[in-house]
Amino acid sequence: MTIRTEPGDPFGGPRILFLGDSFVQGLGDPEFRGWVGRALQAAAQDATGFNLGVRRDTSAQVRQRCWTEVEARTRPGADHRLVLSFGANDAMEEDGGPRVRPADTLANLTALLTGARARGVAALVVGPPPVVAGGAAHLARLTALAPELAGVCARFRVPFVDVTGALAADPVWTAEAEAADGAHPGAGGYARLARLVLDGGFGDWLRRPGDGAGSGNFPAHLIVHQD
Amino acid sequence: MTIRTEPGDPFGGPRILFLGDSFVQGLGDPEFRGWVGRALQAAAQDATGFNLGVRRDTSAQVRQRCWTEVEARTRPGADHRLVLSFGANDAMEEDGGPRVRPADTLANLTALLTGARARGVAALVVGPPPVVAGGAAHLARLTALAPELAGVCARFRVPFVDVTGALAADPVWTAEAEAADGAHPGAGGYARLARLVLDGGFGDWLRRPGDGAGSGNFPAHLIVHQD
Repeated sequence: MTIRTEPGDPFGGPRILFLGDSFVQGLGDPEFRGWVGRALQAAAQDATGFNLGVRRDTSAQVRQRCWTEVEARTRPGADHRLVLSFGANDAMEEDGGPRVRPADTLANLTALLTGARARGVAALVVGPPPVVAGGAAHLARLTALAPELAGVCARFRVPFVDVTGALAADPVWTAEAEAADGAHPGAGGYARLARLVLDGGFGDWLRRPGDGAGSGNFPAHLIVHQD
Repeated sequence: MTIRTEPGDPFGGPRILFLGDSFVQGLGDPEFRGWVGRALQAAAQDATGFNLGVRRDTSAQVRQRCWTEVEARTRPGADHRLVLSFGANDAMEEDGGPRVRPADTLANLTALLTGARARGVAALVVGPPPVVAGGAAHLARLTALAPELAGVCARFRVPFVDVTGALAADPVWTAEAEAADGAHPGAGGYARLARLVLDGGFGDWLRRPGDGAGSGNFPAHLIVHQD
């Protein structure tokens, strides 16, 4: 008995771990695959995708569970990739302040990318989608956070895909979120976010050797908001 | 700023955790959602789905990581559900014997259902899909295992959905698996498996109160192979 494995395994491509919040999870998508499923379908038919998005998770919670969950999904010799996306929950106010302060969000991202580099796992970061019901104040916090996240990514030579402003201005995203819970879009909004990730270089990043973020040599157009 | 939560949260339904192997993960589905995404789309638009399938995982590996991963996804007061599906990897031969012996597969399921009961998490088990490339010997092992798994489920009053024989006889499942890696189907096979799960009572199970497997009162037709 043989299950065909690489070479010749049609699913022998990268093992991509997506960690983040409800937007990573695809909450609200009637097809239950979100932008992650759509981006994989478009760019990585041979990949193995692991969706580890968790509703309400902040960067602190992602940091807490990241390596335990990643290590349960690694396979010796395979090409592992890490996609991170968080921030909207960090910037939500509870008890008079944000759930996670911006400096701590950046510290959490730094710790995660340090861990990825140490493990030879190439990383990519997608910025925080906007929350329609959060209003102008929440959007202002995310709009300030995104270039800071991009700055951390640039120091690690990790690509950052900025999506906050484009989605905030997107009528499909906004209308779908308003029609639902005020935060999560439907199929159209997730398709739009997938397109932003694809146009931001997701496929190019996957096709580059997966030898870890530390030795990455990403083209300049993948590094948005480089400082 | 308010994100609408229950009551009135359109995604305030059950939080369903799917743990298992590559078939749970949906490996090979060009749409990257598998039977899990299809079953949720059909029966549980208000649910939050967590796909914790891991390629190559046996029941021992699922048991090892189950509660750590579930507990990172719980929310106080929410209705949590656990869907388990494994067995095909257990029954694969390596080094002259199965990766996990049938008695140990049953012990692992017993431990998982005991843990679910202790936590008040209602559970449902989906039997192991067949592996075309495994041939007659592997199918015979799974065909023997399925009623044993069902017997454990019956003792916990947990519904068991038998799929092994129906998929082994399904021309779409078989043809898609043969055209891929010999094990994993494409969109058609996963749609067929989703239909078996739906016809096996997935929606009815979700609509019953989620007060834990121990107090379950499942209709007889949900309990297949009851001993």
